[in-house]
Amino acid sequence: MLTMASYAIDRLIEKIRGTGNPSVIGLDPRTEHIPPALFKYQGEAEAILEFNRAIIDAVADIAPAVKPQIAMYERLGAAGLAAYARTIEYARAAGLIVVGDIKRGDVAATAAAYAAAHIADGAPFAADFVTVNPYMGFDAVSPFLAAAESNGRGVFALVKTSNPRSGDIQDITTATGEPLYERVGRLVSEWGADRLGEFGYSSVGAVVGATYPEQGKALRGIMPRAFILVPGYGAQGAAAADLRGFFNADGMGAIVNSSRGITAAWLSPKYRELRDDFAAAARRAAMDMRDDLRAVCGPRS
Amino acid sequence: MLTMASYAIDRLIEKIRGTGNPSVIGLDPRTEHIPPALFKYQGEAEAILEFNRAIIDAVADIAPAVKPQIAMYERLGAAGLAAYARTIEYARAAGLIVVGDIKRGDVAATAAAYAAAHIADGAPFAADFVTVNPYMGFDAVSPFLAAAESNGRGVFALVKTSNPRSGDIQDITTATGEPLYERVGRLVSEWGADRLGEFGYSSVGAVVGATYPEQGKALRGIMPRAFILVPGYGAQGAAAADLRGFFNADGMGAIVNSSRGITAAWLSPKYRELRDDFAAAARRAAMDMRDDLRAVCGPRS
Repeated sequence: MLTMASYAIDRLIEKIRGTGNPSVIGLDPRTEHIPPALFKYQGEAEAILEFNRAIIDAVADIAPAVKPQIAMYERLGAAGLAAYARTIEYARAAGLIVVGDIKRGDVAATAAAYAAAHIADGAPFAADFVTVNPYMGFDAVSPFLAAAESNGRGVFALVKTSNPRSGDIQDITTATGEPLYERVGRLVSEWGADRLGEFGYSSVGAVVGATYPEQGKALRGIMPRAFILVPGYGAQGAAAADLRGFFNADGMGAIVNSSRGITAAWLSPKYRELRDDFAAAARRAAMDMRDDLRAVCGPRS
Repeated sequence: MLTMASYAIDRLIEKIRGTGNPSVIGLDPRTEHIPPALFKYQGEAEAILEFNRAIIDAVADIAPAVKPQIAMYERLGAAGLAAYARTIEYARAAGLIVVGDIKRGDVAATAAAYAAAHIADGAPFAADFVTVNPYMGFDAVSPFLAAAESNGRGVFALVKTSNPRSGDIQDITTATGEPLYERVGRLVSEWGADRLGEFGYSSVGAVVGATYPEQGKALRGIMPRAFILVPGYGAQGAAAADLRGFFNADGMGAIVNSSRGITAAWLSPKYRELRDDFAAAARRAAMDMRDDLRAVCGPRS
């Protein structure tokens, strides 16, 4: 069978297998995590781009994917968004899968404009995957799915998010007795049912926070074909042992994000000897995370 | 009593009273709605800015507010977002209240970055109000509320949206028998309870689509202090008669959006004699909408 890998989900899975590493590195630049030397001859947007390029160079051979969080660029206006676009280009040129963490969602005509911005061919911010917010319903997500289908991209829809108050709405008990996030998980599973790649996973994935391991396990059962993007590991408090339930029995089916745990490793006492080399510290932290994940839940070959 | 009007919601209400017009003009530029002549010597982002400025000049004395939809600028990348920023500046300088239709929402640190982008003082895209998506819970919204509080801005949180499939999640029946949107409306009302301006309305408003008049009436009762931003009038199918239930008895409490009904009026057979003057057509359409709203639900003085 010829491997076309035209679906982003298939390319992601091939990269995870190739690196033996089900993790994604979050590129969420905060001012205080960027070495002051980078600000010496340039503004923050340019400093961020230089910082990201060095991180990407340092991890491109050991990690399958990066996930820039657009808010951290948007705060700097058009210049920041130009840095976001160039970060994506640089990461894709380095062979990394890019998940644009944009959490958009709107009425169909507007969602189509967002898809044109973020996952259509020739899009100014063209990522391989984007995160989407499903609160507005199927027609707020379907323009992304159409673009994902025709251009070999994918989406991750929010289901149960990692933040402390995610339960305010997501945990509301529905008339069937299920919490809302399970109903949303079922919908996301339906939306992706006819969009399966050659490894059996859908182009419609789900976001479920590492901080909710029990819910993750339940959702794993409800959405067997959805790849799960898992934020909240490391700095947000979850450990690798919390993650086992997010993976299927074959060790596949989830990808775990860490952001400042990697990119701000140079500020951590754990990597003190690398405090003058943020890129080397990020590489070391990315390898430690990979090994941590492999021990409990990574691909078993 | 000295009128400080430091809250955006108070400034909005004063503008609505001053113009006798509870409407907001959506600036959602689509390529096909911009006269081809504007593309002659410039790219689309520049054409959009020129188009928007002419619309703003044409309506500034008769409308209280404009609502640019950021997706329609984001599709053009950093240049489009620069046009978004300059559109906001131009509209505020013309005395209009600006609602940035961004529908953001994310974990607290990320939401804080979005707030820094869109409603903090000195923000690159500083609007008076922004729309936010509440699916992630209170901590995804609270950084906007903090910025709104300290800078005299406000938010509108999605409750029941105007699109055909908004019921996929929003209409799910909860264990108490209420539909989800009513529970969300109650939460939004709680989040805004201690943020009341001098006219008794909260800095935390709600988005409820004109296409759902029965639900709008129910939500009006559930959220008496929330100003309701109402999309879906005109092109999306709702008529003024559908809107009465969104307003309180005093004729206040809601603001109705129309986008292409105003900005693409020059393409409508109704305004055929103004087809060569898009700004004049927009002004005429905005006055017709104002009169339409006044007849059924506008401020009664």
